[in-house]
Amino acid sequence: MITGKNYIGNLLSSIGNKTFKTFNPQTNLENEFVFSEASNVEIEQATELATEAFQKFQKVTGAKKCEFLNEIANEIENLGDELIKTYCSETGLPEGRALGERDRTVFQLRSFANLVKEGSWVEAVIDTADPNRQPIPKVDIRKMLIPLGPVVVFGASNFPLAYSTAGGDTAAAFAAGCPVIVKSHPMHAGTGELVASAIIKAAEKTGMPNGVFSNLNSSGIEVGVSLVKHPAVKAVGFTGSIRGGRALYDMAAQRSEPIPVFAEMGSINPVVILPNAAKIKGTDWAKTYAGSITLGSGQFCTNPGLILGIKNDDLSSFIKVLSEEIVKIEPSCMLHPNIIGNYENNKAKMLAQKGLETKATLDKELSANYGRQAITTVEGATFLANTNLHQEVFGPYSMIVQCENIAQLEEIISKLEGQLTGTILAENELENYGSIVDALQNRVGRIIFNGVPTGVEVCPAMVHGGPYPASTDSRFTAVGTESIKRWVRPFSFQSWPNELLPNELKNENPLGILRVVDGKRTNSNI
Amino acid sequence: MITGKNYIGNLLSSIGNKTFKTFNPQTNLENEFVFSEASNVEIEQATELATEAFQKFQKVTGAKKCEFLNEIANEIENLGDELIKTYCSETGLPEGRALGERDRTVFQLRSFANLVKEGSWVEAVIDTADPNRQPIPKVDIRKMLIPLGPVVVFGASNFPLAYSTAGGDTAAAFAAGCPVIVKSHPMHAGTGELVASAIIKAAEKTGMPNGVFSNLNSSGIEVGVSLVKHPAVKAVGFTGSIRGGRALYDMAAQRSEPIPVFAEMGSINPVVILPNAAKIKGTDWAKTYAGSITLGSGQFCTNPGLILGIKNDDLSSFIKVLSEEIVKIEPSCMLHPNIIGNYENNKAKMLAQKGLETKATLDKELSANYGRQAITTVEGATFLANTNLHQEVFGPYSMIVQCENIAQLEEIISKLEGQLTGTILAENELENYGSIVDALQNRVGRIIFNGVPTGVEVCPAMVHGGPYPASTDSRFTAVGTESIKRWVRPFSFQSWPNELLPNELKNENPLGILRVVDGKRTNSNI
Repeated sequence: MITGKNYIGNLLSSIGNKTFKTFNPQTNLENEFVFSEASNVEIEQATELATEAFQKFQKVTGAKKCEFLNEIANEIENLGDELIKTYCSETGLPEGRALGERDRTVFQLRSFANLVKEGSWVEAVIDTADPNRQPIPKVDIRKMLIPLGPVVVFGASNFPLAYSTAGGDTAAAFAAGCPVIVKSHPMHAGTGELVASAIIKAAEKTGMPNGVFSNLNSSGIEVGVSLVKHPAVKAVGFTGSIRGGRALYDMAAQRSEPIPVFAEMGSINPVVILPNAAKIKGTDWAKTYAGSITLGSGQFCTNPGLILGIKNDDLSSFIKVLSEEIVKIEPSCMLHPNIIGNYENNKAKMLAQKGLETKATLDKELSANYGRQAITTVEGATFLANTNLHQEVFGPYSMIVQCENIAQLEEIISKLEGQLTGTILAENELENYGSIVDALQNRVGRIIFNGVPTGVEVCPAMVHGGPYPASTDSRFTAVGTESIKRWVRPFSFQSWPNELLPNELKNENPLGILRVVDGKRTNSNI
Repeated sequence: MITGKNYIGNLLSSIGNKTFKTFNPQTNLENEFVFSEASNVEIEQATELATEAFQKFQKVTGAKKCEFLNEIANEIENLGDELIKTYCSETGLPEGRALGERDRTVFQLRSFANLVKEGSWVEAVIDTADPNRQPIPKVDIRKMLIPLGPVVVFGASNFPLAYSTAGGDTAAAFAAGCPVIVKSHPMHAGTGELVASAIIKAAEKTGMPNGVFSNLNSSGIEVGVSLVKHPAVKAVGFTGSIRGGRALYDMAAQRSEPIPVFAEMGSINPVVILPNAAKIKGTDWAKTYAGSITLGSGQFCTNPGLILGIKNDDLSSFIKVLSEEIVKIEPSCMLHPNIIGNYENNKAKMLAQKGLETKATLDKELSANYGRQAITTVEGATFLANTNLHQEVFGPYSMIVQCENIAQLEEIISKLEGQLTGTILAENELENYGSIVDALQNRVGRIIFNGVPTGVEVCPAMVHGGPYPASTDSRFTAVGTESIKRWVRPFSFQSWPNELLPNELKNENPLGILRVVDGKRTNSNI
């Protein structure tokens, strides 16, 4: 079923000269399929089709978009074993993870399907006219959210399904009414093509315009750069490294018409273990965190890479147990030789920093591409003085900072870059550490009490984002139905004839959506 | 009452060496007061105070922020005649305009006061825990909007009150919980200081933290540049020229921590006069537009600078009447010699373009600084071929493009840069021009039927913004209470103890706000 070609709208295409293969980190061998990298001609075709498709797609009703999104979910499920096998062969991740991520992906698609079917997400606001107002009459103004235009989505290495081809960015963009061009991630181009085929099938079945979706292969940066700079592209979604996300952000900002880039980037997800928690629950937390740090070989944006505590016997004991527990955990395969290569390099750079002590590292021999977990410690003053220690080590690694006192701990938090999450472990003491909570809130998008940061619930209350560099714009989230806001803009109709207004804004409220009419929230007509 | 000093928080300060005066364009003389430009030391003090103030201000209740905003409105009214006289002496605008703009400004402040008092604007979303969910328990997650941090606001030359010191940007930022540092506009520094004094009085009366507001004088660009680059500043609001707004946007994007800039910039606000409208209502529209083009000497962001019609006798007649009517209107004083200088320069550059015909221009002698209205025409093909003709001429000027046919008119619309507004004049024909409406919708933030673009109603349904370069981010509006969204970000609490949550998210819903709880909109407690 995998052809190695690009989807330019509904057609498979491979007119370029560059090819590449994906890699199976479990077997340490290349996979069989040969992928054709998108050429400039294909990029032009995809963007042109997307622009044409936008004219129609932006007017597709919520009910039809709902069908489309649900059908994508169905078609992804219909891919059955082939998808799961391909996923595993391109990531080294276990089948259970593949199945879980597929469930999450179809759940996201169906959540957006429900959102657009119900329809109130457009936030219709109607201020009716008052011809008798003094000193001048009041005009009729009606507002709703409309789509931005074609969106480019970059697949993420660590989530081939949930944050890639038909992941949250794409589902949100389709729900908004934006065509999507995916720059497929080269590490899982086969998984990408299968999911792309599901989207194309769904688009054809539900009568979506050709060009509503394209999937472009690429092993390097050129295709992505061309897309972000292309005048037809109106927004960009990205999940990945700070270096990659920042490069795209800079390119988009330098365009003659700048466009929004929502990049969800790295994070070390600080965890604060308060004194009582270390004393009373230190052992439990150590065991729990050994699991959280090594989950998925630490290849999560929300991996807890930094643990902050007050230097005392309780913290020493927490470190001891964590170190003992983490080496008991079976190492797992990482996504790609490049990923494990970066992990080992970044870990080595970190270990070379003055004052860093290694507390746990695995001695035994491992299969190729298996990640060797590690725990290190450092003094608070050393951490403060050396920002190299603040960087992310993407993999099963965490560093415990032993702070002299609470003031130093607070100072460390305030000096951190923006983070996706912050966690506080506390036992009947949280109310005494208000300034720690405040400092952490200031640096993160989500704050967690007595838990682990890994595991991002897909629900309307979720914020997956945060101050830079956790994301390029803290005003949006990448997870949850609110993530649709990244791809829409408010638009006002003034004195517009009722019969020519979109259904969302007509007097009759034919969709029965919730609107704000003259300041009152109502489902009624006018 | 005017001291010429900066407000660094609650204290007047003038330690710098640079000074400047404002100018009265009606008398063509400098005004008496000497303003002290903010020094680097004062910039540091203001940003440091703002950072400190943010720690407290972000926790101030909606009820207290309501008091603060209402008190600012009261104190602005209390400035009485002195404010109106200063306004007129620094702008050349008539007293009626000053009074109207003051009313608009206090209305905006009171609208935001009501918004934060009611409290539901934080968009609280609560997804409660489900410990029995399979395969893993569901955690409790609660989200609300929280302020970004200190905001820098640039005063606008053409709205000394409504878009300056205590204008929409500032009111929205205070409502959000963000301290504000205003870079006062040098053309109306006296008006700015008076309004700043009202804000400071209100802050002291209602117990707001020192540093919640500062007002910095500056005649050049240095103070603004320092502020936008300052690490303590978390967002920027600007109303003005494309050149100025883009420069700030670029600076903010190039910071090591990029920050959002909402710049509302120039626009030529295209107006389409459809064939029947030109035939049946041409004369009426010509008279109406003569007024709209010259209103406030054309010094509005929403001034109609471009009129598109189909070349025929009806359009010729429209042009003739518009040209006759516009010269009957008494010219008015422009804001400043620099503004009229730019107007005359830009008009001259425009008139030098090949194919442009002048249809109306005033022959009589005018007082210094009075703007000379002008109407020009050009063929559709000429307009398409020369993007110099697409630029804004800020002043009482408009150009009519005589298109060969509807296809050309549509092509012209699709080639325009982003605009604040687009207007369609039609008589029982709008339903036949769907593609014109679509093309226009794609380029603008607000679309108007049978009206004029000037006059921006302050109401929740208003969008004042639009695709670049109308604004730097079309996903936000500068007018209406929704403009608060520019200065806030979503934030999630996971498994947080109920008693330590903000009131907006507590089970008891002590504020009685509207929340979404497990997918249902409700004012009830949990």
